Amino acid sequence: MKLREFELAAANLKGVIHKTPVNSSRTFSEMSGAELFLKCENLQKTGSFKVRGAYNKIAAVARESENIPMLFASSAGNHAQGVAYAARAMGAKSTIVMPRTTPIAKISATEGYGAVVVLAGDCYDEAYQHAKKLCEEQDGCFIHPFDDPDVIAGQGTISLEILQALPTVDAILVPVGGGGLLAGMAACVKQINPRVRVIGVQASGADAMVKSFCTKKDVCTDAVSTIADGIAVKKPGVLTSQLIREHVDEMVTVTDDEIASTILLLLERTKMVVEPAGAAALAAALGHDVELSGKRAVCVLSGGNIDVGFIHKVVEKGLVTRGRQMKFQTVMPDIPGSLYRFSEVMVKCGANIIMVQHDRLSTNLAIGDAILHVACEVTSREHGQELIRQLEAAGYRIVMES
Amino acid sequence: MKLREFELAAANLKGVIHKTPVNSSRTFSEMSGAELFLKCENLQKTGSFKVRGAYNKIAAVARESENIPMLFASSAGNHAQGVAYAARAMGAKSTIVMPRTTPIAKISATEGYGAVVVLAGDCYDEAYQHAKKLCEEQDGCFIHPFDDPDVIAGQGTISLEILQALPTVDAILVPVGGGGLLAGMAACVKQINPRVRVIGVQASGADAMVKSFCTKKDVCTDAVSTIADGIAVKKPGVLTSQLIREHVDEMVTVTDDEIASTILLLLERTKMVVEPAGAAALAAALGHDVELSGKRAVCVLSGGNIDVGFIHKVVEKGLVTRGRQMKFQTVMPDIPGSLYRFSEVMVKCGANIIMVQHDRLSTNLAIGDAILHVACEVTSREHGQELIRQLEAAGYRIVMES
Repeated sequence: MKLREFELAAANLKGVIHKTPVNSSRTFSEMSGAELFLKCENLQKTGSFKVRGAYNKIAAVARESENIPMLFASSAGNHAQGVAYAARAMGAKSTIVMPRTTPIAKISATEGYGAVVVLAGDCYDEAYQHAKKLCEEQDGCFIHPFDDPDVIAGQGTISLEILQALPTVDAILVPVGGGGLLAGMAACVKQINPRVRVIGVQASGADAMVKSFCTKKDVCTDAVSTIADGIAVKKPGVLTSQLIREHVDEMVTVTDDEIASTILLLLERTKMVVEPAGAAALAAALGHDVELSGKRAVCVLSGGNIDVGFIHKVVEKGLVTRGRQMKFQTVMPDIPGSLYRFSEVMVKCGANIIMVQHDRLSTNLAIGDAILHVACEVTSREHGQELIRQLEAAGYRIVMES
Repeated sequence: MKLREFELAAANLKGVIHKTPVNSSRTFSEMSGAELFLKCENLQKTGSFKVRGAYNKIAAVARESENIPMLFASSAGNHAQGVAYAARAMGAKSTIVMPRTTPIAKISATEGYGAVVVLAGDCYDEAYQHAKKLCEEQDGCFIHPFDDPDVIAGQGTISLEILQALPTVDAILVPVGGGGLLAGMAACVKQINPRVRVIGVQASGADAMVKSFCTKKDVCTDAVSTIADGIAVKKPGVLTSQLIREHVDEMVTVTDDEIASTILLLLERTKMVVEPAGAAALAAALGHDVELSGKRAVCVLSGGNIDVGFIHKVVEKGLVTRGRQMKFQTVMPDIPGSLYRFSEVMVKCGANIIMVQHDRLSTNLAIGDAILHVACEVTSREHGQELIRQLEAAGYRIVMES
């Protein structure tokens, strides 16, 4: 891939997409030991970087034929919205095949950008096969989510924007699934400034590209398991793998727990919503999986399309992990007034009870006693510890539940 | 207030704060019937506009005395962080009195900006009295959260930025508590372009300024009740009330439900976190409380400092309101296999059970029967209705719970 291709892609994209901000973050700098910046592709049109590659590909198709044929793609996520948006922006038509399990919200969003959505198959691979078949039957043009030079060139334009905003950048961290984003960004930045370290980040439950990078062979995995659905890819691209081996300095993985706590931090500190795949690069920087101390590093937040139900679960888990919600059990006499006396201690400590359950059926329970299961909200871990001390001082034996 | 004061404030603030974006939103334009823009002060330094007024006030103090005295303020929220940040930026020292009930996160954030935090009183008024007393004892300078011309001039600079970004703006919607933001923005914009409609928005449970605007008298309320703590003010400012009566076109209120659903929409559609007070103006536009059709309107998102526990509750409520979580009860024989047969129908429909409770104690229950209380997740309201149909077809009588 020549630098000229990336520059042409940037020219194609001008005025079509947002030039997303490269924001400095004091909080994350302090946490990582680096001087940390965030490239906010979660604020990109359609909520992810995917629109860059899709639009650049369609622009290339348009240069070759007077009438753009029907565009086909398969995706349950950001590529679907990217292709739909880009097709409409070029005045073309698109058909997106999505697995039957795709959430309604993603289907509506894709249709909202003007695409025809076809539901087929129970997983991505089946939807992909169906899309290829439809595309052949209708003599259309298939837009691959990552393994295509025009798509890769489009994603690589992010590097040009980073170098423009921050010419002194030392390192760039990029989430990796199929590898289109990393391949494009690395091939672009290394031709301009080989001093810039490029680091790819995968979820530890979907690390085919890491293995391919380390073994220098194309690797497929049979199964993927991660909350980061946007980068849960079994079979990385051939072209992307090759470019990544050539241009990337380092590949690391992050756990789902690291990703989830990074999403929560982003919500709280930057007031931004980022999807699991989009939080992976920052998770690696915060987890010190990469040596960045004193370096000027940019983490790409690749997308922000996260289901509200999932935000709910991430926040809930965060509240428990940080000691803001706690669960415990205690034994009390099964007589009138027991709960009243217990809840008096709770109210004195300012703890908010959110669940109470009586259990009279445990085998190791004396007759006349009951186990009380309690969940409550406290303001901090210290507050929770103080509550336990007060309950124990009032004579309750507390057993924490996890 | 002269236009010159706002221009001076803008000059003071240059380089100290972010020039926050004025973003167009197709989604919200379609929902409101207006051409809608968002002024993102949730992305401002310290997470709210308050830093503008605080910094401008301190800059004014610095002009009058060579050594800035200790700065005092009372606040449980954004004003605390604004003063702390601004004081440090000016090389001055600050003491912030916060009510004892203030969440740890807000105390840490304020201390993190270099302020000394004193906890005193059980409510804002008591903290305020204590801060005034400390300030007098130590011969300091008290920074009022809204009723001060320099503070008002600082907040008003937002109007200059809006006019610069969008000179053709027809209407500006602003959240109102004590009135500093609205007074400043209205006094500023009306002197530049009196054609621009300025609309203030209060929470219906804290509407002292609306009453003061309508009755043309200063009004206090005994109690406030709203989730929008940032604008829950019992006693609006005297100077702010006067400026608002002079310059503002219209005042409206929004309910807590409208605010909560707007917060959720902002999370989903704009990938941004906005606090309840900060969502009030947009809630008014989306609720059609103001006639905006075909107009170019800017809603000020005044802040983004929202507790994660609160995000959790807002999202949870949104999931229920949109039919993504549902609760119902049904009667079944209290024998082995009952729950198995019931859960078979649930799994066939793809519903995820998140709670089951057996109740054998209801008075209207036949002996040998049990009531099952069920909560479950579904992908959409339609999916939920389909689930109910399937359960009824399998012989279960379903009673929805709210």
